[in-house]
Amino acid sequence: MQISIIGAGNVATHLALALHLKGIKINSIVSRNIKNAEVLAIQVGATAHSNMKKDTSWGENDFVIVAVKDDAIESVLSSNLLKNSNVVHTSGSYESDKMKPFCKSYGAFYPFQTFRKTAQVNIADVPFFIEFSDSSLKEKLFELAHLLTPKVFELDSIARKKLHVSGVFINNFIYFLLHKMKQFGDHHQIDAQHFMPLLQQTINNAMYHPENLQTGPAMRGDIQTMQSHLELLKDNAILQNLYKTLSATIYKDINGKEIEL
Amino acid sequence: MQISIIGAGNVATHLALALHLKGIKINSIVSRNIKNAEVLAIQVGATAHSNMKKDTSWGENDFVIVAVKDDAIESVLSSNLLKNSNVVHTSGSYESDKMKPFCKSYGAFYPFQTFRKTAQVNIADVPFFIEFSDSSLKEKLFELAHLLTPKVFELDSIARKKLHVSGVFINNFIYFLLHKMKQFGDHHQIDAQHFMPLLQQTINNAMYHPENLQTGPAMRGDIQTMQSHLELLKDNAILQNLYKTLSATIYKDINGKEIEL
Repeated sequence: MQISIIGAGNVATHLALALHLKGIKINSIVSRNIKNAEVLAIQVGATAHSNMKKDTSWGENDFVIVAVKDDAIESVLSSNLLKNSNVVHTSGSYESDKMKPFCKSYGAFYPFQTFRKTAQVNIADVPFFIEFSDSSLKEKLFELAHLLTPKVFELDSIARKKLHVSGVFINNFIYFLLHKMKQFGDHHQIDAQHFMPLLQQTINNAMYHPENLQTGPAMRGDIQTMQSHLELLKDNAILQNLYKTLSATIYKDINGKEIEL
Repeated sequence: MQISIIGAGNVATHLALALHLKGIKINSIVSRNIKNAEVLAIQVGATAHSNMKKDTSWGENDFVIVAVKDDAIESVLSSNLLKNSNVVHTSGSYESDKMKPFCKSYGAFYPFQTFRKTAQVNIADVPFFIEFSDSSLKEKLFELAHLLTPKVFELDSIARKKLHVSGVFINNFIYFLLHKMKQFGDHHQIDAQHFMPLLQQTINNAMYHPENLQTGPAMRGDIQTMQSHLELLKDNAILQNLYKTLSATIYKDINGKEIEL
């Protein structure tokens, strides 16, 4: 199988490296930032281009993977260079049907994972969610995804967007809280390793217990403890505001009424 | 070593069971809710009392562990029945020095973990933070804690309160987000198992990478994606409000300016 990849960012990089490792031939890596394209292309034996027009062999690929920001997908498609290609995007929220006028066949190839170039990911553990405009693409897409992971699922654009929203909470928001907590710990000489057993238990309680195991001062409406915590956070506006919002939300969710903090 | 425990809630239950398993003799379990006291006492070979006055042998314990809500600690102490006892509380935020007038010696015995009676905890993995009014108590407290876990650390009341605030974020807030996400998944036929690789990667990125690995529409200021997510959450006021607050906070933290959502 041979493919080309448009994009040289976090997702493009992880996919290119993983597919290359599985023996997929990668023809071209295209990125407006030619340096990024080159860095990736050299690792996967591909040719780097700064512009799609510089590549004249789009039709030769089994797939073209478009791994660019959502708002850049349309400019890639409207180049009209992919008319004879099977094209998949990698976005959680982009509606695949918008690709119809610009491609031979089209779909989604969405890994439900967070990718940063500098952070290793075990791709075999990542669930991939695919969508396809026709059954011949379906077969090829399953084949491609199964090279990387046993976890391959069909999902339409609407359901994929819901999954993507979950991902924003699971990754973006929880990452932010943990990152801020690590900074808070560093600042106050608390070893972040102490957080880990509590964090693992929190995940176990949330993900594997059907009953609500919420604990803490917000649930109990323990205003005295919450106020002493807010006082302690008075030099950290971000954490203080999040503490207020999350505590008030938890209190209301459990007790059905507002609380003033 | 012999102890008594005041309280029969989540913390009291986990500590009593774990200490009993390690051969500590537990004399009394006291709880205003006698049913709770009895349920726990029978499991650890102790006597259940609904009132501290019904126990006349407080001085015989090596320790009395007070594992009640913060605002109930003082009424336990002001009974004046613990004048000849070594007393430790288990609270993250209670200032131990307040115990001075009421006890022979006093301190904190704080497990940094979330406990619910119905959820198993690997106590050997839990870090305990202790505080003590004198060195003879210190030795005995280390001995007691080391029966349960190798992770025993000294920490004064001010530092312990900071740790407790971290615990509120790590457990209470992240639990709430995950619990709401699981409900969201159930509602939309998304298997919560799909969340796990992303969640584990999120934790790895936050806890083991020094650089900031934040990703997502909030960081990028991708208003179009955020608005489509908010539209999708329009029937879920809790998630919609949290999405707004957390996105605005992340955007401001990274870009140094406000964003309107």
